[in-house]
Amino acid sequence: MKKIINDPKRVVDESVAGFGAAHADLVRVEMDPIHIVRADAPIAGKVGIVSGGGSGHEPLHAGFVGFGMLDAAVPGAVFTSPTPDPILAATKAVDGGAGVLHIVKNYTGDVLNFETAADLASVEGIDVRSVVTNDDVAVKDSLYTAGRRGVGGTVLVEKIAGAAAERGDSLDEVAEVAERVNANARSMGLALTPCIVPHAGEESFTLAEDEIEIGIGIHGEPGRERIKLEPADGLVDRLLAPILEDLPFESGDRVLLFVNGMGGSPLVELYIAYRRAAEVLGERGIEIARSLVGNYITSLEMQGMSITLLKLDDEMVELWDAPVQTAALRWGR
Amino acid sequence: MKKIINDPKRVVDESVAGFGAAHADLVRVEMDPIHIVRADAPIAGKVGIVSGGGSGHEPLHAGFVGFGMLDAAVPGAVFTSPTPDPILAATKAVDGGAGVLHIVKNYTGDVLNFETAADLASVEGIDVRSVVTNDDVAVKDSLYTAGRRGVGGTVLVEKIAGAAAERGDSLDEVAEVAERVNANARSMGLALTPCIVPHAGEESFTLAEDEIEIGIGIHGEPGRERIKLEPADGLVDRLLAPILEDLPFESGDRVLLFVNGMGGSPLVELYIAYRRAAEVLGERGIEIARSLVGNYITSLEMQGMSITLLKLDDEMVELWDAPVQTAALRWGR
Repeated sequence: MKKIINDPKRVVDESVAGFGAAHADLVRVEMDPIHIVRADAPIAGKVGIVSGGGSGHEPLHAGFVGFGMLDAAVPGAVFTSPTPDPILAATKAVDGGAGVLHIVKNYTGDVLNFETAADLASVEGIDVRSVVTNDDVAVKDSLYTAGRRGVGGTVLVEKIAGAAAERGDSLDEVAEVAERVNANARSMGLALTPCIVPHAGEESFTLAEDEIEIGIGIHGEPGRERIKLEPADGLVDRLLAPILEDLPFESGDRVLLFVNGMGGSPLVELYIAYRRAAEVLGERGIEIARSLVGNYITSLEMQGMSITLLKLDDEMVELWDAPVQTAALRWGR
Repeated sequence: MKKIINDPKRVVDESVAGFGAAHADLVRVEMDPIHIVRADAPIAGKVGIVSGGGSGHEPLHAGFVGFGMLDAAVPGAVFTSPTPDPILAATKAVDGGAGVLHIVKNYTGDVLNFETAADLASVEGIDVRSVVTNDDVAVKDSLYTAGRRGVGGTVLVEKIAGAAAERGDSLDEVAEVAERVNANARSMGLALTPCIVPHAGEESFTLAEDEIEIGIGIHGEPGRERIKLEPADGLVDRLLAPILEDLPFESGDRVLLFVNGMGGSPLVELYIAYRRAAEVLGERGIEIARSLVGNYITSLEMQGMSITLLKLDDEMVELWDAPVQTAALRWGR
C-alpha cells in the first residue's frame, strides 16, 4: 500500500486537522467528537444543514461546508458511518433556532446513526428533518443498502438546499427542495481500478487488467456487471442509458450534467466523457443548462467516474446559481 | 492501459472539445490550430496573457482561462510542447492593443516554440514579453530542461499576473510582477506511481512497490533520488527542506503554501501533507498567509504531490485575493 499517510488509524484525524488549518477562514474543526462547522455557525434564524458519512469521498462532505451550502460535516472513519455522537454535536453546533436538516446518503449505517442523532436532538428541543439521497440507478439493494444508494446527486442536493437555507427558507421549505432535487437526480458510476482503505491495507476488490465494473458503488461495492474495457464513448453510453430511462429524461427537459471523477482519473478523461454525454443528450433533445465536471464525490484513489443528471426547474437553477463559498465549490463571492 | 478514452491519438482534441462544451460561458475553443480563448477576448486596452505546454497537466492551463487569469491556453499533445502556430494564433486572438505576456514553463521545447511564436507575433506588430518559470529546486538540468524546471509556481504566476493585467497594468508591469512571483517561488515534488501517456501505452518509468521518487518532474522525469516509502511527515520534510534553504525562507516571512496533487492522490492525503507542512513552517516562524490545496498541475493519473512556497509581499497578496473566474480557480465573482 503506497499512500501519503502516517499511521493508517490516524488518517481521518490528521486529514481533518490539515483541512481545518488550510481553510480556517471558512470552517472550524472540532476533534472530540470530530466534526467540521462553518466558521460563523450557528447563524440565528437560518436553517442549519448537516451532512456526513464515511471518509474517503473527499471533498464530500467537509469541502462543502461554508456560505450557501453545509453548516457542518461529520466524517466517519474511512468508508464507515460516523456514530450518533458527532452527528448530534454538529446538529447542536449549527442550530440557530430555525431547525436543522440532515442530508443522509442511503447506506444502512448512515441512516441509522443520523436517525439516532435526530432523535437525541429532538429531545434537546431541536427541530430536525432528514432527507435521504438515493440517486444511484445501478442496483436496487446492495452490500450496504436497502434500496438505492446515495451518490453524486448528494452534491447537488447539498448545494441547492444550502442556497435555500441561505436565503432564509423555513425548515419545511428547505427539506422540500432537497427532496425535489433528490427525486429528479439519477446517477451511475464505473470503476477502472479498486482503491485501498488505509486501515485494511489491501485492495477492496480486484479487477483484471482489461476489466471494468459498471454500476460501481462509492465504496467499491459491486455494480451491475463486469465488462471488458471499451472506448470512452461506449462507457458513457452504458451509464447514460439506464439513467435516461429511469426518471425518464425526455426531449425538452433542461438538465444539470455532472461528470464526476472517482478520485484517480485525470481531468482529460472526465472531459472526454463529458463530450460524449453532451452529444447523446443533444441527440435526445435534452438541454444541458448547467454543468459540473471534476472530483466531487470520490472513492479515495479509485480510477473511474460517475454521471449524474438532474432535471432542473426554475427554482433549482436559481438556487444552483446562488453564491457559494466552500473549499471545493465556490462562485459568486 | 486502462483509461476513459477513445482513440489515444484524439485524447487532447476530444478532451478540449468537452472542456469547451462544459465551460462555454468562460471560454471558446478553436480547433485549428488548437487553442482555448477567454470568451470575451480580445479585451481592448488589456494586456493579454497566454500560457501553454504539453497536455496531461490539467487543469493547467485551460482550466485557468477566464476573468483575472489567462486570456488563452495552448495545449500540445500529451507531455509535448505545442508548436509555434497555435501559440501565434492564441497571441493574436488575445491582443487588445496593450501587448501580450507569454508565461512559459522552462522546458526546452516550450521555450523554443514560444520564442518562435513571439518573434512571428512581433513581425505582425504585437508587443510580446515572455516570462519563463523555473521554480523546481529538485534538479539543475533535466531530461527536458536547461536549468530548473517550471512546475507549481507557474499556477501562482498565472493567477497573480492575471490579476495585474485585469486591473489594467501595462505589459512591463505585468511582466515585472510575473518575474517577481517566479523569483520568490520554490517547489519540489514526489511520485508514488508512474503515469501512462496514452499514445505511448505504457508506464513512463517504473517504481517498485515500496519505492518513491523524490524530486520527480511533471512528466515523470527523474528527480533526486529513489527512497523506500516512509510516513507522510518524513516525505513532507524531504520536500520542504530543500525548498526552505533555497530562497531561503526565513522567520518572519509571509508565504503562500500550495500543496498540489499529481492527479491520482486523494485529497485526504494532500491535507495530511498540508498539516505537516504547516507544522514545520510554524516551528520556523514562517507565517502562512494564504493556502492552496488540490490538483492544479498534474501528471495524468500519477500518484504523488508537490509543495510550492511563495514568499509574499503586499502586492502579491492583493493580486492573489483579486476576483478570478476560471473553470479550476474561482473566487470573488
